[in-house]
Amino acid sequence: MSGHVAVIGLGPGNADQVTPEASRAVADARWFYGYGPYVDRLALRPDQVKVASDNREEISRASAALEKAAGGERVAVVSGGDPGVFAMAAAVCEAIEAGPAEWRAIDLTIVPGVTAMLAVAARIGAPLGHDFCAISLSDNLKPWELIEKRLDAVSAAGFVIALYNPISKARPWQLGRAFETLRKNLPATTPVIFGRAAGRPDERIEVFPLAEADPEKADMATCVMIGSPETRIIERGDKPALIYTPRFSAGASA
Amino acid sequence: MSGHVAVIGLGPGNADQVTPEASRAVADARWFYGYGPYVDRLALRPDQVKVASDNREEISRASAALEKAAGGERVAVVSGGDPGVFAMAAAVCEAIEAGPAEWRAIDLTIVPGVTAMLAVAARIGAPLGHDFCAISLSDNLKPWELIEKRLDAVSAAGFVIALYNPISKARPWQLGRAFETLRKNLPATTPVIFGRAAGRPDERIEVFPLAEADPEKADMATCVMIGSPETRIIERGDKPALIYTPRFSAGASA
Repeated sequence: MSGHVAVIGLGPGNADQVTPEASRAVADARWFYGYGPYVDRLALRPDQVKVASDNREEISRASAALEKAAGGERVAVVSGGDPGVFAMAAAVCEAIEAGPAEWRAIDLTIVPGVTAMLAVAARIGAPLGHDFCAISLSDNLKPWELIEKRLDAVSAAGFVIALYNPISKARPWQLGRAFETLRKNLPATTPVIFGRAAGRPDERIEVFPLAEADPEKADMATCVMIGSPETRIIERGDKPALIYTPRFSAGASA
Repeated sequence: MSGHVAVIGLGPGNADQVTPEASRAVADARWFYGYGPYVDRLALRPDQVKVASDNREEISRASAALEKAAGGERVAVVSGGDPGVFAMAAAVCEAIEAGPAEWRAIDLTIVPGVTAMLAVAARIGAPLGHDFCAISLSDNLKPWELIEKRLDAVSAAGFVIALYNPISKARPWQLGRAFETLRKNLPATTPVIFGRAAGRPDERIEVFPLAEADPEKADMATCVMIGSPETRIIERGDKPALIYTPRFSAGASA
Protein backbone atom coordinates (compact mmCIF):
# COMPACT_ATOMS: atom_id res chain seq x y z
CA MET A 1 0.00 0.00 0.00
CA SER A 2 1.43 3.36 -0.99
CA GLY A 3 0.57 6.64 0.64
CA HIS A 4 0.72 10.23 -0.39
CA VAL A 5 3.11 13.12 0.10
CA ALA A 6 2.03 16.73 -0.40
CA VAL A 7 4.82 19.31 -0.38
CA ILE A 8 2.97 22.45 0.59
CA GLY A 9 3.91 26.10 0.23
CA LEU A 10 2.46 28.15 3.07
CA GLY A 11 3.34 31.53 1.58
CA PRO A 12 5.22 34.34 3.30
CA GLY A 13 3.56 33.89 6.69
CA ASN A 14 0.30 35.77 6.49
CA ALA A 15 -2.73 33.42 6.66
CA ASP A 16 -4.37 35.61 4.02
CA GLN A 17 -1.68 34.61 1.54
CA VAL A 18 -2.15 30.84 1.92
CA THR A 19 -3.98 29.55 -1.17
CA PRO A 20 -7.20 27.52 -0.73
CA GLU A 21 -5.34 24.65 -2.43
CA ALA A 22 -2.67 24.73 0.30
CA SER A 23 -5.27 24.93 3.07
CA ARG A 24 -7.08 21.91 1.65
CA ALA A 25 -3.81 19.98 1.34
CA VAL A 26 -3.17 20.69 5.03
CA ALA A 27 -6.67 19.48 5.95
CA ASP A 28 -6.12 16.27 3.95
CA ALA A 29 -2.85 15.18 5.60
CA ARG A 30 -2.23 13.41 8.87
CA TRP A 31 1.55 13.73 9.40
CA PHE A 32 3.35 17.07 9.09
CA TYR A 33 7.09 17.34 8.52
CA GLY A 34 8.89 20.64 8.39
CA TYR A 35 11.20 23.19 9.93
CA GLY A 36 9.82 24.06 13.38
CA PRO A 37 8.60 27.63 12.71
CA TYR A 38 6.73 26.55 9.56
CA VAL A 39 5.05 23.57 11.21
CA ASP A 40 4.11 25.84 14.11
CA ARG A 41 2.09 28.04 11.77
CA LEU A 42 -0.44 25.24 11.34
CA ALA A 43 -3.58 25.01 13.48
CA LEU A 44 -3.94 21.24 13.38
CA ARG A 45 -6.72 18.91 14.54
CA PRO A 46 -6.12 16.46 17.39
CA ASP A 47 -5.71 13.60 14.87
CA GLN A 48 -2.93 15.41 13.01
CA VAL A 49 0.70 15.02 14.09
CA LYS A 50 3.57 17.50 13.87
CA VAL A 51 7.12 16.23 13.30
CA ALA A 52 9.25 19.37 13.50
CA SER A 53 12.94 19.35 12.68
CA ASP A 54 15.87 21.70 12.50
CA ASN A 55 16.64 24.03 9.62
CA ARG A 56 19.56 22.21 8.04
CA GLU A 57 18.07 18.71 8.03
CA GLU A 58 16.17 18.84 4.76
CA ILE A 59 17.24 15.45 3.40
CA SER A 60 16.65 13.47 6.57
CA ARG A 61 13.29 15.23 6.96
CA ALA A 62 12.32 14.42 3.37
CA SER A 63 13.39 10.78 3.83
CA ALA A 64 11.40 10.44 7.06
CA ALA A 65 8.32 11.84 5.31
CA LEU A 66 8.70 9.45 2.35
CA GLU A 67 9.25 6.50 4.69
CA LYS A 68 6.04 7.36 6.51
CA ALA A 69 4.12 7.70 3.21
CA ALA A 70 5.54 4.38 1.97
CA GLY A 71 3.72 2.80 4.92
CA GLY A 72 0.43 4.07 3.49
CA GLU A 73 0.05 7.33 5.39
CA ARG A 74 -1.02 10.77 4.16
CA VAL A 75 1.96 13.01 4.76
CA ALA A 76 2.56 16.74 4.35
CA VAL A 77 5.96 18.39 4.06
CA VAL A 78 5.56 22.11 4.68
CA SER A 79 7.67 25.02 3.45
CA GLY A 80 7.35 28.74 3.93
CA GLY A 81 6.86 30.64 0.67
CA ASP A 82 6.89 28.35 -2.33
CA PRO A 83 8.25 24.82 -1.82
CA GLY A 84 10.03 24.88 -5.19
CA VAL A 85 12.20 27.93 -4.42
CA PHE A 86 15.17 27.01 -2.19
CA ALA A 87 12.87 24.81 -0.15
CA MET A 88 11.58 21.29 0.38
CA ALA A 89 10.42 20.22 -3.10
CA ALA A 90 14.00 19.74 -4.35
CA ALA A 91 14.97 17.94 -1.13
CA VAL A 92 12.05 15.52 -1.54
CA CYS A 93 13.09 14.86 -5.16
CA GLU A 94 16.69 14.27 -4.07
CA ALA A 95 15.49 11.79 -1.43
CA ILE A 96 13.29 9.97 -3.96
CA GLU A 97 16.15 9.65 -6.42
CA ALA A 98 18.54 8.32 -3.77
CA GLY A 99 15.98 6.17 -1.93
CA PRO A 100 14.42 2.74 -2.41
CA ALA A 101 12.58 2.08 -5.69
CA GLU A 102 9.22 1.90 -3.88
CA TRP A 103 9.44 5.62 -3.08
CA ARG A 104 8.98 6.38 -6.78
CA ALA A 105 5.50 4.84 -6.55
CA ILE A 106 4.40 7.25 -3.80
CA ASP A 107 1.79 9.76 -4.94
CA LEU A 108 3.50 13.15 -4.84
CA THR A 109 1.73 16.51 -5.04
CA ILE A 110 3.50 19.85 -4.87
CA VAL A 111 1.37 22.83 -3.90
CA PRO A 112 2.87 26.17 -4.99
CA GLY A 113 2.80 29.29 -2.86
CA VAL A 114 3.71 32.98 -2.89
CA THR A 115 7.50 33.04 -2.51
CA ALA A 116 9.23 35.72 -0.41
CA MET A 117 10.55 37.87 -3.26
CA LEU A 118 7.04 38.30 -4.68
CA ALA A 119 5.62 39.28 -1.29
CA VAL A 120 8.41 41.78 -0.61
CA ALA A 121 8.19 43.22 -4.13
CA ALA A 122 4.44 43.76 -3.75
CA ARG A 123 4.97 45.81 -0.58
CA ILE A 124 7.27 48.28 -2.26
CA GLY A 125 6.20 48.62 -5.91
CA ALA A 126 7.46 46.44 -8.73
CA PRO A 127 11.22 45.91 -8.35
CA LEU A 128 10.94 42.58 -10.23
CA GLY A 129 9.10 44.24 -13.11
CA HIS A 130 11.76 43.28 -15.61
CA ASP A 131 14.17 40.33 -16.06
CA PHE A 132 15.32 39.06 -12.67
CA CYS A 133 17.01 36.18 -10.92
CA ALA A 134 16.95 34.44 -7.58
CA ILE A 135 20.15 33.25 -5.93
CA SER A 136 20.63 31.44 -2.64
CA LEU A 137 23.56 33.02 -0.87
CA SER A 138 24.21 29.91 1.19
CA ASP A 139 27.55 28.33 0.49
CA ASN A 140 26.69 25.23 2.49
CA LEU A 141 25.71 23.44 -0.71
CA LYS A 142 27.78 25.16 -3.38
CA PRO A 143 31.21 26.80 -3.46
CA TRP A 144 31.41 30.54 -2.74
CA GLU A 145 33.36 31.10 -5.97
CA LEU A 146 30.33 29.92 -7.96
CA ILE A 147 28.07 32.37 -6.12
CA GLU A 148 30.44 35.26 -6.89
CA LYS A 149 30.64 34.23 -10.52
CA ARG A 150 26.85 34.22 -10.75
CA LEU A 151 26.48 37.59 -9.01
CA ASP A 152 29.00 39.05 -11.43
CA ALA A 153 27.27 37.57 -14.50
CA VAL A 154 23.75 38.70 -13.67
CA SER A 155 24.64 42.17 -12.41
CA ALA A 156 26.69 42.82 -15.57
CA ALA A 157 23.79 41.61 -17.71
CA GLY A 158 21.20 43.93 -16.13
CA PHE A 159 19.10 41.51 -14.06
CA VAL A 160 17.38 42.50 -10.85
CA ILE A 161 18.66 40.11 -8.16
CA ALA A 162 16.77 38.52 -5.26
CA LEU A 163 18.99 36.93 -2.62
CA TYR A 164 17.57 34.17 -0.46
CA ASN A 165 19.32 32.87 2.69
CA PRO A 166 21.46 36.03 2.77
CA ILE A 167 23.08 35.59 6.16
CA SER A 168 23.17 33.39 9.25
CA LYS A 169 25.32 32.93 12.34
CA ALA A 170 27.37 30.33 10.49
CA ARG A 171 27.64 32.51 7.37
CA PRO A 172 28.32 36.04 8.62
CA TRP A 173 30.51 37.54 5.85
CA GLN A 174 28.90 36.35 2.62
CA LEU A 175 26.33 39.12 2.17
CA GLY A 176 28.97 41.84 2.61
CA ARG A 177 31.17 40.12 0.05
CA ALA A 178 28.19 39.89 -2.32
CA PHE A 179 27.61 43.65 -2.03
CA GLU A 180 31.29 44.23 -2.81
CA THR A 181 31.02 42.12 -5.95
CA LEU A 182 27.86 43.90 -7.04
CA ARG A 183 29.39 47.36 -6.48
CA LYS A 184 31.88 46.57 -9.25
CA ASN A 185 29.07 46.32 -11.82
CA LEU A 186 26.27 48.51 -10.50
CA PRO A 187 25.87 52.25 -9.82
CA ALA A 188 26.32 53.32 -6.19
CA THR A 189 22.73 54.57 -6.17
CA THR A 190 21.19 51.19 -7.13
CA PRO A 191 18.39 50.53 -4.62
CA VAL A 192 18.85 47.59 -2.26
CA ILE A 193 15.70 46.36 -0.52
CA PHE A 194 15.86 44.45 2.75
CA GLY A 195 12.46 42.75 3.09
CA ARG A 196 11.58 40.86 6.21
CA ALA A 197 8.26 39.28 7.20
CA ALA A 198 6.37 40.92 4.33
CA GLY A 199 2.67 41.12 5.10
CA ARG A 200 3.10 40.06 8.72
CA PRO A 201 2.67 42.24 11.80
CA ASP A 202 6.44 42.37 12.33
CA GLU A 203 7.10 43.39 8.71
CA ARG A 204 10.22 45.49 8.14
CA ILE A 205 11.10 46.74 4.70
CA GLU A 206 14.04 49.10 4.26
CA VAL A 207 15.76 50.53 1.21
CA PHE A 208 19.33 51.83 0.89
CA PRO A 209 21.55 52.78 -2.02
CA LEU A 210 24.01 49.99 -2.81
CA ALA A 211 26.93 52.14 -1.62
CA GLU A 212 25.40 52.22 1.87
CA ALA A 213 23.85 48.74 2.04
CA ASP A 214 24.80 47.24 5.40
CA PRO A 215 24.70 43.43 5.67
CA GLU A 216 23.75 43.74 9.34
CA LYS A 217 20.31 44.92 8.23
CA ALA A 218 19.57 41.35 7.11
CA ASP A 219 18.89 38.17 9.02
CA MET A 220 18.07 34.61 7.95
CA ALA A 221 14.45 35.51 7.24
CA THR A 222 15.25 38.53 5.05
CA CYS A 223 14.93 38.56 1.29
CA VAL A 224 17.45 41.06 -0.10
CA MET A 225 16.71 42.51 -3.53
CA ILE A 226 19.18 44.53 -5.58
CA GLY A 227 17.86 46.60 -8.46
CA SER A 228 19.27 46.77 -11.96
CA PRO A 229 20.74 49.99 -13.40
CA GLU A 230 17.24 50.72 -14.71
CA THR A 231 15.39 50.37 -11.40
CA ARG A 232 13.67 53.63 -10.40
CA ILE A 233 12.40 55.32 -7.25
CA ILE A 234 9.19 57.36 -7.17
CA GLU A 235 9.00 59.72 -4.21
CA ARG A 236 5.46 60.23 -2.93
CA GLY A 237 5.69 62.79 -0.13
CA ASP A 238 4.42 61.25 3.11
CA LYS A 239 3.69 57.90 1.47
CA PRO A 240 6.54 55.38 1.17
CA ALA A 241 8.50 55.70 -2.08
CA LEU A 242 7.72 53.20 -4.82
CA ILE A 243 10.59 51.19 -6.28
CA TYR A 244 10.10 49.64 -9.67
CA THR A 245 11.92 48.32 -12.70
CA PRO A 246 10.32 49.45 -15.96
CA ARG A 247 9.10 46.86 -18.43
CA PHE A 248 11.13 48.46 -21.20
CA SER A 249 14.89 48.62 -21.53
CA ALA A 250 17.02 50.73 -23.79
CA GLY A 251 19.62 48.01 -23.79
CA ALA A 252 22.11 49.82 -21.59
CA SER A 253 23.78 47.76 -18.94
CA ALA A 254 26.33 48.77 -16.38
CA MET B 1 -10.74 63.10 -2.57
CA SER B 2 -8.39 60.31 -3.48
CA GLY B 3 -9.40 56.75 -4.18
CA HIS B 4 -7.63 53.45 -4.09
CA VAL B 5 -5.97 51.17 -6.62
CA ALA B 6 -5.34 47.49 -5.90
CA VAL B 7 -3.14 45.67 -8.40
CA ILE B 8 -4.22 42.07 -7.91
CA GLY B 9 -2.53 38.81 -8.87
CA LEU B 10 -5.12 36.17 -9.70
CA GLY B 11 -2.63 33.30 -9.88
CA PRO B 12 -2.23 30.83 -12.74
CA GLY B 13 -5.93 30.48 -13.45
CA ASN B 14 -7.23 27.90 -10.99
CA ALA B 15 -9.64 29.43 -8.45
CA ASP B 16 -8.00 27.23 -5.82
CA GLN B 17 -4.75 29.14 -6.29
CA VAL B 18 -6.21 32.62 -5.70
CA THR B 19 -5.16 33.79 -2.24
CA PRO B 20 -7.82 34.92 0.25
CA GLU B 21 -6.10 38.33 0.17
CA ALA B 22 -6.70 38.58 -3.59
CA SER B 23 -10.32 37.44 -3.27
CA ARG B 24 -10.94 40.08 -0.62
CA ALA B 25 -9.30 42.77 -2.76
CA VAL B 26 -11.64 41.79 -5.60
CA ALA B 27 -14.66 42.01 -3.29
CA ASP B 28 -13.54 45.47 -2.11
CA ALA B 29 -13.23 47.11 -5.55
CA ARG B 30 -15.86 48.57 -7.82
CA TRP B 31 -14.03 49.10 -11.15
CA PHE B 32 -11.95 46.35 -12.77
CA TYR B 33 -9.29 47.05 -15.36
CA GLY B 34 -7.37 44.31 -17.09
CA TYR B 35 -6.63 42.21 -20.13
CA GLY B 36 -9.93 40.64 -21.26
CA PRO B 37 -9.24 36.99 -20.33
CA TYR B 38 -8.10 37.95 -16.81
CA VAL B 39 -11.07 40.23 -16.15
CA ASP B 40 -13.34 37.47 -17.45
CA ARG B 41 -12.16 35.15 -14.71
CA LEU B 42 -13.93 37.31 -12.13
CA ALA B 43 -17.46 36.53 -10.97
CA LEU B 44 -18.50 40.09 -10.16
CA ARG B 45 -21.54 41.52 -8.41
CA PRO B 46 -24.03 43.72 -10.33
CA ASP B 47 -22.49 46.85 -8.77
CA GLN B 48 -19.01 45.98 -10.03
CA VAL B 49 -17.88 47.10 -13.49
CA LYS B 50 -15.45 45.41 -15.89
CA VAL B 51 -13.27 47.53 -18.16
CA ALA B 52 -11.46 44.99 -20.34
CA SER B 53 -8.70 46.00 -22.72
CA ASP B 54 -6.32 44.43 -25.18
CA ASN B 55 -3.07 42.71 -24.30
CA ARG B 56 -0.60 45.35 -25.39
CA GLU B 57 -2.26 48.37 -23.83
CA GLU B 58 -0.77 48.20 -20.35
CA ILE B 59 0.11 51.88 -19.97
CA SER B 60 -3.20 53.28 -21.21
CA ARG B 61 -5.01 50.74 -19.03
CA ALA B 62 -2.93 51.71 -15.98
CA SER B 63 -3.55 55.41 -16.67
CA ALA B 64 -7.29 54.88 -17.04
CA ALA B 65 -7.37 53.02 -13.73
CA LEU B 66 -5.39 55.75 -11.93
CA GLU B 67 -7.60 58.44 -13.45
CA LYS B 68 -10.67 56.66 -12.13
CA ALA B 69 -9.13 56.28 -8.67
CA ALA B 70 -8.11 59.95 -8.62
CA GLY B 71 -11.84 60.66 -8.81
CA GLY B 72 -12.31 58.84 -5.51
CA GLU B 73 -13.25 55.39 -6.75
CA ARG B 74 -12.09 51.96 -5.57
CA VAL B 75 -10.31 50.45 -8.54
CA ALA B 76 -8.76 47.04 -9.21
CA VAL B 77 -6.19 46.30 -11.89
CA VAL B 78 -6.02 42.54 -12.40
CA SER B 79 -3.16 40.39 -13.66
CA GLY B 80 -2.83 36.66 -14.13
CA GLY B 81 -0.11 35.09 -11.98
CA ASP B 82 1.72 37.66 -9.90
CA PRO B 83 1.27 41.34 -10.86
CA GLY B 84 4.94 42.10 -10.20
CA VAL B 85 6.31 39.59 -12.74
CA PHE B 86 6.05 40.92 -16.31
CA ALA B 87 2.61 42.25 -15.49
CA MET B 88 0.61 45.27 -14.39
CA ALA B 89 2.42 46.43 -11.22
CA ALA B 90 5.33 47.89 -13.21
CA ALA B 91 2.94 49.50 -15.72
CA VAL B 92 1.02 51.18 -12.89
CA CYS B 93 4.29 52.48 -11.42
CA GLU B 94 5.37 53.79 -14.84
CA ALA B 95 2.03 55.57 -15.22
CA ILE B 96 2.31 57.10 -11.74
CA GLU B 97 5.80 58.39 -12.44
CA ALA B 98 4.77 59.92 -15.79
CA GLY B 99 1.36 61.15 -14.64
CA PRO B 100 0.03 64.18 -12.73
CA ALA B 101 1.39 64.75 -9.20
CA GLU B 102 -1.99 63.92 -7.66
CA TRP B 103 -1.63 60.28 -8.75
CA ARG B 104 1.19 59.89 -6.22
CA ALA B 105 -1.35 60.50 -3.47
CA ILE B 106 -3.56 57.59 -4.53
CA ASP B 107 -3.57 54.68 -2.12
CA LEU B 108 -1.86 51.82 -3.90
CA THR B 109 -1.92 48.18 -2.80
CA ILE B 110 -0.24 45.37 -4.69
CA VAL B 111 -1.52 41.87 -3.96
CA PRO B 112 0.97 39.14 -4.87
CA GLY B 113 0.01 35.84 -6.47
CA VAL B 114 1.43 32.53 -7.62
CA THR B 115 3.32 33.31 -10.82
CA ALA B 116 3.30 30.87 -13.78
CA MET B 117 6.81 29.47 -13.33
CA LEU B 118 6.01 28.39 -9.75
CA ALA B 119 2.76 26.70 -10.83
CA VAL B 120 4.43 24.87 -13.73
CA ALA B 121 7.40 23.86 -11.58
CA ALA B 122 5.08 22.40 -8.94
CA ARG B 123 3.40 20.16 -11.52
CA ILE B 124 6.63 18.52 -12.58
CA GLY B 125 8.93 18.39 -9.56
CA ALA B 126 11.36 21.12 -8.59
CA PRO B 127 13.09 22.48 -11.70
CA LEU B 128 13.61 25.85 -9.93
CA GLY B 129 15.20 24.15 -6.92
CA HIS B 130 18.47 26.00 -7.39
CA ASP B 131 19.50 29.46 -8.65
CA PHE B 132 17.20 30.56 -11.46
CA CYS B 133 16.13 33.54 -13.51
CA ALA B 134 13.03 34.80 -15.30
CA ILE B 135 13.32 36.52 -18.68
CA SER B 136 10.58 37.98 -20.83
CA LEU B 137 11.26 36.95 -24.41
CA SER B 138 9.27 39.85 -25.80
CA ASP B 139 11.37 42.26 -27.82
CA ASN B 140 8.57 44.81 -27.98
CA LEU B 141 10.10 46.68 -25.05
CA LYS B 142 13.79 45.82 -25.26
CA PRO B 143 16.21 45.06 -28.09
CA TRP B 144 16.64 41.43 -29.12
CA GLU B 145 20.44 41.73 -28.75
CA LEU B 146 19.97 42.38 -25.03
CA ILE B 147 17.81 39.27 -24.65
CA GLU B 148 20.45 37.14 -26.40
CA LYS B 149 23.18 38.60 -24.21
CA ARG B 150 21.17 37.73 -21.09
CA LEU B 151 20.40 34.19 -22.27
CA ASP B 152 24.09 33.67 -22.94
CA ALA B 153 25.14 35.06 -19.54
CA VAL B 154 22.74 33.02 -17.42
CA SER B 155 23.09 29.74 -19.29
CA ALA B 156 26.90 29.98 -19.04
CA ALA B 157 26.62 30.71 -15.32
CA GLY B 158 24.44 27.67 -14.54
CA PHE B 159 21.06 29.26 -13.87
CA VAL B 160 17.77 27.52 -14.60
CA ILE B 161 15.84 29.81 -16.96
CA ALA B 162 12.11 30.55 -17.05
CA LEU B 163 10.94 32.30 -20.22
CA TYR B 164 7.77 34.38 -20.10
CA ASN B 165 5.99 35.66 -23.24
CA PRO B 166 7.91 33.12 -25.34
CA ILE B 167 6.08 33.52 -28.63
CA SER B 168 3.18 35.32 -30.31
CA LYS B 169 1.89 35.91 -33.84
CA ALA B 170 3.91 39.11 -33.99
CA ARG B 171 7.02 37.44 -32.55
CA PRO B 172 7.27 34.05 -34.28
CA TRP B 173 11.05 33.45 -34.48
CA GLN B 174 12.38 34.60 -31.11
CA LEU B 175 11.92 31.36 -29.16
CA GLY B 176 13.73 29.32 -31.83
CA ARG B 177 16.60 31.81 -31.78
CA ALA B 178 16.69 31.60 -27.98
CA PHE B 179 17.01 27.80 -28.13
CA GLU B 180 19.88 28.19 -30.60
CA THR B 181 21.68 30.55 -28.23
CA LEU B 182 21.14 28.21 -25.28
CA ARG B 183 22.40 25.18 -27.24
CA LYS B 184 25.82 26.84 -27.41
CA ASN B 185 26.17 26.73 -23.62
CA LEU B 186 24.04 23.79 -22.49
CA PRO B 187 24.17 20.02 -23.03
CA ALA B 188 21.83 18.66 -25.73
CA THR B 189 20.05 16.60 -23.07
CA THR B 190 19.11 19.60 -20.88
CA PRO B 191 15.38 19.28 -20.12
CA VAL B 192 13.10 21.94 -21.60
CA ILE B 193 9.64 22.18 -20.04
CA PHE B 194 6.71 23.67 -21.93
CA GLY B 195 4.10 24.46 -19.27
CA ARG B 196 0.68 25.71 -20.25
CA ALA B 197 -2.36 26.33 -18.08
CA ALA B 198 -0.82 24.64 -15.03
CA GLY B 199 -3.49 23.45 -12.63
CA ARG B 200 -6.33 24.16 -15.06
CA PRO B 201 -8.49 21.58 -16.85
CA ASP B 202 -6.69 22.29 -20.15
CA GLU B 203 -3.23 21.91 -18.57
CA ARG B 204 -0.50 20.68 -20.92
CA ILE B 205 3.01 20.11 -19.65
CA GLU B 206 5.59 18.56 -21.97
CA VAL B 207 9.32 17.96 -21.64
CA PHE B 208 11.90 17.60 -24.39
CA PRO B 209 15.69 17.55 -24.47
CA LEU B 210 17.06 20.92 -25.57
CA ALA B 211 18.32 19.39 -28.85
CA GLU B 212 14.71 18.55 -29.79
CA ALA B 213 12.87 21.52 -28.28
CA ASP B 214 10.42 22.79 -30.89
CA PRO B 215 9.25 26.43 -30.54
CA GLU B 216 5.90 25.45 -32.03
CA LYS B 217 5.08 23.62 -28.81
CA ALA B 218 4.69 27.03 -27.14
CA ASP B 219 2.04 29.71 -27.38
CA MET B 220 1.57 33.07 -25.68
CA ALA B 221 0.25 31.41 -22.51
CA THR B 222 3.14 28.96 -22.15
CA CYS B 223 5.92 29.29 -19.61
CA VAL B 224 9.05 27.65 -21.03
CA MET B 225 11.67 26.49 -18.55
CA ILE B 226 15.17 25.37 -19.47
CA GLY B 227 17.16 23.38 -16.93
CA SER B 228 20.75 23.98 -15.92
CA PRO B 229 23.49 21.40 -16.57
CA GLU B 230 22.67 20.02 -13.11
CA THR B 231 18.93 19.54 -13.63
CA ARG B 232 17.94 15.86 -13.27
CA ILE B 233 15.14 13.56 -14.40
CA ILE B 234 13.72 10.82 -12.17
CA GLU B 235 11.83 8.16 -14.10
CA ARG B 236 8.93 6.68 -12.16
CA GLY B 237 7.48 3.92 -14.36
CA ASP B 238 3.85 4.72 -15.17
CA LYS B 239 3.93 7.97 -13.20
CA PRO B 240 5.20 11.11 -14.95
CA ALA B 241 8.93 11.65 -14.54
CA LEU B 242 10.05 14.21 -11.96
CA ILE B 243 12.35 17.00 -13.09
CA TYR B 244 14.36 18.78 -10.45
CA THR B 245 17.46 20.83 -9.88
CA PRO B 246 19.38 19.75 -6.77
CA ARG B 247 20.00 22.24 -3.98
CA PHE B 248 23.71 21.50 -4.07
CA SER B 249 26.16 22.25 -6.83
CA ALA B 250 29.67 20.99 -7.36
CA GLY B 251 30.51 24.23 -9.08
CA ALA B 252 30.65 22.82 -12.60
CA SER B 253 29.01 24.90 -15.28
CA ALA B 254 28.70 24.11 -18.96
